[in-house]
Amino acid sequence: MKLPKFEVEQWMTNYEGKAVYNLTDTCVSPLKLQELLAMDTDHLFQDLTLDYGAITGDPMLKKALLSLYQTGSEANITTAQGCLQASEMVMNTVLEAGDTVISYVPGYQAFIDYPRSIGCKVIPLRLYEEDGWQPKLAELEEAMKEPVKMIIVNNPSNPTGTVFEDAYLSRLIALSEKNHTMILSDEIYRDPACRSLSDRTENAVSVSSLSKMYSLAGLRFGWLKGPADLIEKINERRDYSIISTGPVADILARIALENKDAILQRSRTIISACKDAVREFLERDPRFSVVLPDYGTVSFLRYEGNVPSETLALHALNRYGVFFVPGSCFACENHLRLGLTCREETMRKGLVHLAQALDDLTQ
Amino acid sequence: MKLPKFEVEQWMTNYEGKAVYNLTDTCVSPLKLQELLAMDTDHLFQDLTLDYGAITGDPMLKKALLSLYQTGSEANITTAQGCLQASEMVMNTVLEAGDTVISYVPGYQAFIDYPRSIGCKVIPLRLYEEDGWQPKLAELEEAMKEPVKMIIVNNPSNPTGTVFEDAYLSRLIALSEKNHTMILSDEIYRDPACRSLSDRTENAVSVSSLSKMYSLAGLRFGWLKGPADLIEKINERRDYSIISTGPVADILARIALENKDAILQRSRTIISACKDAVREFLERDPRFSVVLPDYGTVSFLRYEGNVPSETLALHALNRYGVFFVPGSCFACENHLRLGLTCREETMRKGLVHLAQALDDLTQ
Repeated sequence: MKLPKFEVEQWMTNYEGKAVYNLTDTCVSPLKLQELLAMDTDHLFQDLTLDYGAITGDPMLKKALLSLYQTGSEANITTAQGCLQASEMVMNTVLEAGDTVISYVPGYQAFIDYPRSIGCKVIPLRLYEEDGWQPKLAELEEAMKEPVKMIIVNNPSNPTGTVFEDAYLSRLIALSEKNHTMILSDEIYRDPACRSLSDRTENAVSVSSLSKMYSLAGLRFGWLKGPADLIEKINERRDYSIISTGPVADILARIALENKDAILQRSRTIISACKDAVREFLERDPRFSVVLPDYGTVSFLRYEGNVPSETLALHALNRYGVFFVPGSCFACENHLRLGLTCREETMRKGLVHLAQALDDLTQ
Repeated sequence: MKLPKFEVEQWMTNYEGKAVYNLTDTCVSPLKLQELLAMDTDHLFQDLTLDYGAITGDPMLKKALLSLYQTGSEANITTAQGCLQASEMVMNTVLEAGDTVISYVPGYQAFIDYPRSIGCKVIPLRLYEEDGWQPKLAELEEAMKEPVKMIIVNNPSNPTGTVFEDAYLSRLIALSEKNHTMILSDEIYRDPACRSLSDRTENAVSVSSLSKMYSLAGLRFGWLKGPADLIEKINERRDYSIISTGPVADILARIALENKDAILQRSRTIISACKDAVREFLERDPRFSVVLPDYGTVSFLRYEGNVPSETLALHALNRYGVFFVPGSCFACENHLRLGLTCREETMRKGLVHLAQALDDLTQ
């Protein structure tokens, strides 16, 4: 089952270690283990026995996960080792060779190339920068004239930051219900202040993790929330892959979720400060522009000038230590993925160096 | 990509919680987190930052993993979230629809049904109880008259406990090298006192984890050791699935591996005491027999009498709290999977109750 290289992940693996100013990370500045354990006032962590634990997560963990949603019960939840694996589980369980899948571009490569590796036809719908990285409803309606097995929505989106407009989602839901099309909603960048698609239709399965908004990528903890019959099928298939997420990740995840307000408040403060720094930078340097999203941690910075994005990214890194994923990793030139996740000072200094790097290559 | 229910895992999930005497678990009696952390004399754990960590494992972790092998360097190692996922990664990376795969029965269902789900033809070679659960060389030679993409060896095997004889393995290696057939060697039950197939041929990739011999299933930590070009391909594909195993699992795994002698000594003592208890039981009750393996934690207990294995397993559990996976989960009646992993007292009492359960159903 052949897959091409995952451009953005390979780029991160190859270059992230060199970053002095990491302006492309989509995970809010990571928490330390000790910061998380300090929240464990009931001392849940220290008494763990290192067996498989509850295979699909214990009731207290599921209760904590359900607190992120308006609907659902334990039967609607299962766990995964990260959000990407949660998506993989859904695609492996639902899709067969010959199925048609709708996805969005520029987008996360897995949502195009993974279904293709299963033998699916993928219809990529465009997000339009001139429309604030929104898709066109007419294109969705056209695509859904043929039978579609799955629509994959990443909301907010990586790398564009797209928060899908409500009118579009309402129509998407109506079409999916009419045509019995499943919605895979990757909500890894969702702020729980926003409604999950899985709370709006029985046709949607939401996947997420603690990696981005909760600053806990190190736990490799994700989950799925969706229709009980799908969750049951996924739990059966999961036996061929991971068996369980294990008590260490499970208990640390539960501690995080039971203290989500404090963690989210920290994240929102960091994201907000990053946005302020970006706005000030954009006012000073008209060669750059960006659609700053209302939610999530990702945006897609546009720059003017005839410089390939990979050239700019490598020069910025090698000369100034400023790290970006180039738009080329998303087949979209003249862009750099801009994470809204670092400390304000890092963002301010990094953007100044980015402008210098562009100067170097255009003057 | 349809897969049938994974019989043994579903059985474990459905019934394990009821066990008073768990005589079927294949993981040596689990360690507590505090027991593991007590080995962390360098206080590696407490300083963790919860980012993705080193994507394929850091050099110190890989060094600790390489200590389990006679050959190889960092380029021959990558990490996975458990051994099953490591196998899945190998099969997903190497196999395509139409390939032929050799596997062994009775065996672990994933090694038959997962390749089938990819669209492979699977040739199941039999393990013969009358030969101490060994396969027949002539059948391997016959099967390899056609092009075979992969031979999957589980050594020691679940559920039979088969430790493949050296002469058989030598011939298997020679055939695989002659025919460019990859060997996937699941060595999750290997005692490092035994040589890994990956140390005997460049054609073999070994997968394993800390779940069985190291009593640490709760870490969900596994790894692969094999040819560098395959490991590189797997690392690329891994980006679509897990990204990393994360610093929490990685550091706990490293602590365990750097203290493997103490952990393995504990395991060998437990396994040995279990075997003694089983031998004494067999001398008292001639209705039961078993091939007790030299290594590993698994055996396949045979019983006489016209009682379906599922009936016996359910009665033993419901009436006496004695938990077994029935042979029916491995398509092999008149057997129960017997783990050599529990406390001696549990084994002794559990076996007495098993005999009572068989009495109940046959008298």
